[in-house]
Amino acid sequence: MSELSDTIRIVKADPPGGPDALSIQTRPTPRAAAGEVVIQTLACGINRPDQFERMGFYPAPPGAPEGLGLEVSGRVAEIGEGVTRWSVGDPVCALVSGGGYGDAVNVSAGSVLPVPDGLSIEDAAGLPETVFTVFANVFDQAGLSQGETFLVHGGTSGIGTTAIQMAKAAGARVFATAGTDEKCRLCERLGADIVVNYREADFQTVFSEAGGVDVILDMVGGDYVAKNIAIAKAGARIVSIAFLKGSQVQLDLMRVMLKRITLTGSTLRARPNSEKARLAGLIEATVWPWIADGQLHPVIDSRFALDDVRLAHERLDSGAHSGKILLIP
Amino acid sequence: MSELSDTIRIVKADPPGGPDALSIQTRPTPRAAAGEVVIQTLACGINRPDQFERMGFYPAPPGAPEGLGLEVSGRVAEIGEGVTRWSVGDPVCALVSGGGYGDAVNVSAGSVLPVPDGLSIEDAAGLPETVFTVFANVFDQAGLSQGETFLVHGGTSGIGTTAIQMAKAAGARVFATAGTDEKCRLCERLGADIVVNYREADFQTVFSEAGGVDVILDMVGGDYVAKNIAIAKAGARIVSIAFLKGSQVQLDLMRVMLKRITLTGSTLRARPNSEKARLAGLIEATVWPWIADGQLHPVIDSRFALDDVRLAHERLDSGAHSGKILLIP
Repeated sequence: MSELSDTIRIVKADPPGGPDALSIQTRPTPRAAAGEVVIQTLACGINRPDQFERMGFYPAPPGAPEGLGLEVSGRVAEIGEGVTRWSVGDPVCALVSGGGYGDAVNVSAGSVLPVPDGLSIEDAAGLPETVFTVFANVFDQAGLSQGETFLVHGGTSGIGTTAIQMAKAAGARVFATAGTDEKCRLCERLGADIVVNYREADFQTVFSEAGGVDVILDMVGGDYVAKNIAIAKAGARIVSIAFLKGSQVQLDLMRVMLKRITLTGSTLRARPNSEKARLAGLIEATVWPWIADGQLHPVIDSRFALDDVRLAHERLDSGAHSGKILLIP
Repeated sequence: MSELSDTIRIVKADPPGGPDALSIQTRPTPRAAAGEVVIQTLACGINRPDQFERMGFYPAPPGAPEGLGLEVSGRVAEIGEGVTRWSVGDPVCALVSGGGYGDAVNVSAGSVLPVPDGLSIEDAAGLPETVFTVFANVFDQAGLSQGETFLVHGGTSGIGTTAIQMAKAAGARVFATAGTDEKCRLCERLGADIVVNYREADFQTVFSEAGGVDVILDMVGGDYVAKNIAIAKAGARIVSIAFLKGSQVQLDLMRVMLKRITLTGSTLRARPNSEKARLAGLIEATVWPWIADGQLHPVIDSRFALDDVRLAHERLDSGAHSGKILLIP
């Protein structure tokens, strides 16, 4: 690996706005504080929260590295005091709390995972945000178990493609929604049992007739929330992780009570490092073997040079992508 | 104990309506099917769901004994095939799925508990519905743990008085709301640390300034739901068990997601017998000792003869009661 230079590029949206608000700026190269490592970034993933942050709706938590970007892969370039697991040069991927779009980033050592067997370093950049999100919400929080039925909306998003494969690997029956027939076929190839093109059919009707759902991962919100409640089985868990159709919803909590439904949601970024480290340990034990044996692979939509970050965000905004969009510094 | 006669009295609301809709009717005495016992009823508790059933909003689940009433105490009068724990004459209390208001009722043996040490058979009728409800929602579902902060709305209701004492016995800090200063004092005597008279102060302001809440048991609904979300700490669990101000609510799920709040709710009556038996086992192990050592006692508001069931429901409707209203057949 090459030496880190004195400065790095990061990406800012200041003032916030559309893809054109993004600009590349130069900053001093970060150093590894106690308990941290610095990763020389070889690839970073683009995620939905980046879009909200770009638009000014999702402020970075205090202490986060400056700039957009929540996941990276690369090589360990510097080790902070007290970090024993990692050595300089190790190929890793990591969930970062900011600054992922760029040449290097500092991160709590507990949020770092080895590049899994059978995956290139670059493709591993597409794992952390989606795998942590799906694991934390669908498995750790909602407790999806073998034989249950799982539904993910937005089945061909980065989250969706990961969630379908992980739920299938865990032995669940998997439902998904997507917006074109082509995207529906992709969901099926990834293992989904029933997929609804939401532009052509009412998912509430289809999934009700298919027997209902135990766990739902929803990134749509709006009128989907009431429909999710309608198709939920007794004891179902519905987890919201984004609100493409808005987060202001009108609900009848009587239905929630009578079916003993759990409505919840979460974000990863604001969680304490200790919590991310706990999740990382569970993910390495549970999910990394699924990658090694071929049950889970990141679906990469496209790759853009860091200088083309505006084009990459235009693709994200278009909704035309399937799987992850990567930036290559 | 006396022999059961061939017929029993039950209470029906047919057609549904106010307290005057209630009438006493005669039915053949039930027999114990396999796995059941028949209890000769010495007292039965009145609960909020009885009011909704009386008004026609809460139909009985299939197979439930006919008539109102969800909890009884008395003596075992007949043992069904396969029931080994109980003997004729045992003093017991039980969660029943209907028919509690009357002279005798059949119930799945797993929903029966011994009258706890230190309590009269009659007063034990005030335990099952509230103790099962609080245990299932606050402990089993929401996982209230020592050192967390718990809030119950309607602190002097049957549920409220039980919830305050159980949360306190479990080592939680306890907040409550009530509608008169006198009711607030009762909550404090039961162990509540901070009590808000909701007619005189805004509970959202008071409990926010007091540091927020980890677990909320809500029977109010309506505009309380958004206020509950506002005072919830990160990772809080909010459990709805009734909706005195309505179940149609307008929510911002973004706040639920950002604070990783869990919104849920449940009813007991429709749960399978196996689930009630599981809860009964946990309750006997956890809650019954709190009764024996004086940390939990049912607060009895008043006692009415079964023939005065309309008067008893008028008192429930008035909201003037504190604790349980009992019917004595």
